[in-house]
Amino acid sequence: MATYNTVFLLFCWISFAVAWSPRLLSPRSDNTKTSLPNEYSYETFYLDQQVDHFGFNNGDTFKQRYLIASQFWNHHGGPIFFYTGNEGDITWFCNNTGFMWDIAPEFRALLVFAEHRYYGSSIPYGSQAFKDPSKLNYLTSEQALADFAVLIRYLKSSIPGTNDSPVVAFGGSYGGMLSAWMRMKYPSAVIGALAASAPIWDFTGLTKCSALMDTVTKSFMKASPPCVDNIRQSWTTIDKIAATADGRNFIYNTFHLCAPLKTADDVGNFKAWLANAWFDLAMVNYPYPANFLEPLPAWPVKAVCAPLGSPLEDKLLMQGLYKAVNIYFNYTGQAKCLNTSQDATASLGDAGWGYQACTEMVMPDCADSSSMFEPTTWNFTSFSNSCFSSYKIRPRQDWVATQYGGKDIEAPTNIIFSNGLLDPWSAGGVLNSLSDTLIAIQIPDGAHHLDLRAANKDDTAYVKAARTQEKNIIRLWLSSQ
Amino acid sequence: MATYNTVFLLFCWISFAVAWSPRLLSPRSDNTKTSLPNEYSYETFYLDQQVDHFGFNNGDTFKQRYLIASQFWNHHGGPIFFYTGNEGDITWFCNNTGFMWDIAPEFRALLVFAEHRYYGSSIPYGSQAFKDPSKLNYLTSEQALADFAVLIRYLKSSIPGTNDSPVVAFGGSYGGMLSAWMRMKYPSAVIGALAASAPIWDFTGLTKCSALMDTVTKSFMKASPPCVDNIRQSWTTIDKIAATADGRNFIYNTFHLCAPLKTADDVGNFKAWLANAWFDLAMVNYPYPANFLEPLPAWPVKAVCAPLGSPLEDKLLMQGLYKAVNIYFNYTGQAKCLNTSQDATASLGDAGWGYQACTEMVMPDCADSSSMFEPTTWNFTSFSNSCFSSYKIRPRQDWVATQYGGKDIEAPTNIIFSNGLLDPWSAGGVLNSLSDTLIAIQIPDGAHHLDLRAANKDDTAYVKAARTQEKNIIRLWLSSQ
Repeated sequence: MATYNTVFLLFCWISFAVAWSPRLLSPRSDNTKTSLPNEYSYETFYLDQQVDHFGFNNGDTFKQRYLIASQFWNHHGGPIFFYTGNEGDITWFCNNTGFMWDIAPEFRALLVFAEHRYYGSSIPYGSQAFKDPSKLNYLTSEQALADFAVLIRYLKSSIPGTNDSPVVAFGGSYGGMLSAWMRMKYPSAVIGALAASAPIWDFTGLTKCSALMDTVTKSFMKASPPCVDNIRQSWTTIDKIAATADGRNFIYNTFHLCAPLKTADDVGNFKAWLANAWFDLAMVNYPYPANFLEPLPAWPVKAVCAPLGSPLEDKLLMQGLYKAVNIYFNYTGQAKCLNTSQDATASLGDAGWGYQACTEMVMPDCADSSSMFEPTTWNFTSFSNSCFSSYKIRPRQDWVATQYGGKDIEAPTNIIFSNGLLDPWSAGGVLNSLSDTLIAIQIPDGAHHLDLRAANKDDTAYVKAARTQEKNIIRLWLSSQ
Repeated sequence: MATYNTVFLLFCWISFAVAWSPRLLSPRSDNTKTSLPNEYSYETFYLDQQVDHFGFNNGDTFKQRYLIASQFWNHHGGPIFFYTGNEGDITWFCNNTGFMWDIAPEFRALLVFAEHRYYGSSIPYGSQAFKDPSKLNYLTSEQALADFAVLIRYLKSSIPGTNDSPVVAFGGSYGGMLSAWMRMKYPSAVIGALAASAPIWDFTGLTKCSALMDTVTKSFMKASPPCVDNIRQSWTTIDKIAATADGRNFIYNTFHLCAPLKTADDVGNFKAWLANAWFDLAMVNYPYPANFLEPLPAWPVKAVCAPLGSPLEDKLLMQGLYKAVNIYFNYTGQAKCLNTSQDATASLGDAGWGYQACTEMVMPDCADSSSMFEPTTWNFTSFSNSCFSSYKIRPRQDWVATQYGGKDIEAPTNIIFSNGLLDPWSAGGVLNSLSDTLIAIQIPDGAHHLDLRAANKDDTAYVKAARTQEKNIIRLWLSSQ
């Protein structure tokens, strides 16, 4: 089975790079069309930015999109709340960061949402960007931070009344990493940062590669221990059933798949698709119905675990699994079949994060046998080879820790690291305060940057408390200016 | 005279970029052969560095040179004193930073002197570097800082006993700017920085362009008010005499120039050469004989002002000026003639700083009529055009302030900004403490980073006190680890 394993592992890496990484926090294209509540109104602008801030030989520029909502703003020095856009269309982050909209009136803040280069409408070289490695060369976190710094300087010089406005950075997931790094690298530009669910330590040598999968397992365990046992058991059961053509056909029919499972690769993809679903579910395990990655009920982990709530075996286990993933992929009941290659949809956003994961954002992942996932190992060499094959570049696994300080980040100040403990990414986050001004906030029953979402009647006491604390800390920063 | 002025101004800009900038702090080639005191012994190493830390498309590497002196080091966690090399051969900075050698024994420190990319023996693409703009593209302060961060990480992972060694950055002039910026941008790599005579504010919008020339004038005024009057008078006197062929011949003979003054350009060059000399003299106005840029007597400004100590006019003024500059350019009496193009010698170091001054390090300069210099204005457009003509690139005058925070740098910690007030560059430095941990030290009778030089029996009380304070602060940083 060595070959099979290799293929599966390779898929896993690609899967991790493309689907299990923070990339998944970016929108599916249909979600971007969600209509906005009336109060989420903003204007759209574009700023000419240097394609290369760190060299002078390439003088090309591109247009960076940013959104501004000024209706709450105190024009006489009111603060600027600046969202450091992550890997996707900025309008989606704008609409999914209700916390900023909720608190803007009481802070009388100007809201700015800045798009990350190479995503959404801010793509250097446009349609050529992803066809030529030399055109993708400027897709790095450092260049994105420099864009933000230049944009902040530009806003302050061009919008009357902003010159003395303190700027607070906000971001979630990769955007939260950027918020934290923005405060670390450009403390003159932002007085502080709320970095929500930012796995800044999910890098080589900083966090165990199995930590994320262990956290998913814990989240499922909280919902239903038998569910964890069933999922843990499912991998060998699938292998056993899929060993014959009849068995593969059974799976195809049971899961209402869009395409039959013909090869070992197909089976590998099928298992990775399931693993992705469990991972994503832990990430979006919100206390109310939401439509973040997929339309889902409240507490979706509990919901998908319901059909897996007692010990199941063989074909009964397969049927239980189907009922579970059908809740994730087909909660609305609209899908005629389930598409195991759904996560591999190659949108522009996917391509961008795939490149970032293959350059700077090398987040090692693996699964221990103690988790509910099929055990996998992390092999940097193979990962590097797959990156070279995709992008003609090789990752530098130590670079992020060198550039952003690794675990030794006590010197910076004024950063809130919030994490929902149900969220797999919390395993790579800062869970304990590092100093009087580097404050960790844990949300024990929170999933991925729940605190950044709009207030909801079903919010838990923990997330309400987190938001109150965040507001108090931001108020403290502002009063110290 | 418009054309004449234009030519002169243009020369001035080139002069400022090439000769009046921190570049001049780097060695003339003959100085690098100075033999070392026995105790200045070190080993030389090279580390493979990425040519481009901020992009992945170019995977080329180059060898960065660094020097290590381990004879004083406490192998059990003793600190590392890390010199952030500036625009020149690192051996020269190693030999001219006696303060680090003087204090290494009492701190039991490991000394590391890291060469700046594109200088000395650390040149990406070697002899091709300066022939192709695409090869020079990686000559920026950000890339240099990244080299230092990677090197520190490498040292800590490869030298047994260094893993817990706190690193303190040291640097003078541009190297001091790098030290300060290193602490700002990589606080996890260095616990603090001694930034000596670092004009981090000598950039657009941060310091008046006339400030440096005003400081030179003040330094000369302290030595001899009539000297200042004579020099201020000299420019029109030169113009008047040089208006005729006979007059230009008189100047040629009186100054023992190596080449006659034939054209208005020659006269412009001659005046710029004199202005350079006054500027440099203020910079190296040390209290004892030294051989920093040229072999010079103690308090050289006073020495060159001696022949200009009473009001002089016309040809007598020319003769006085000659006696003055002859002390600067020919103190040893070895020169057969004085070469007005001496500062334009195109060594590799010159080429490197010229490029940096034309990209990031845009330091606006001009002279007011209240100074002793011929009045000049700063014209960024013309400067940009001259840069484009030389390097096919254009400078970004706001970039350094955006990248390194401009005057709003209170957030970082643990930086000493020391400045000798006789030094022209002090006008662009941090002269007053910005917080409890961003400490400014003024040395009223000090010239350019006098405090970094080796102790000397003729050191003044002020520089001795500055060094004591610096040691105490560094000790405080180390004890807080």
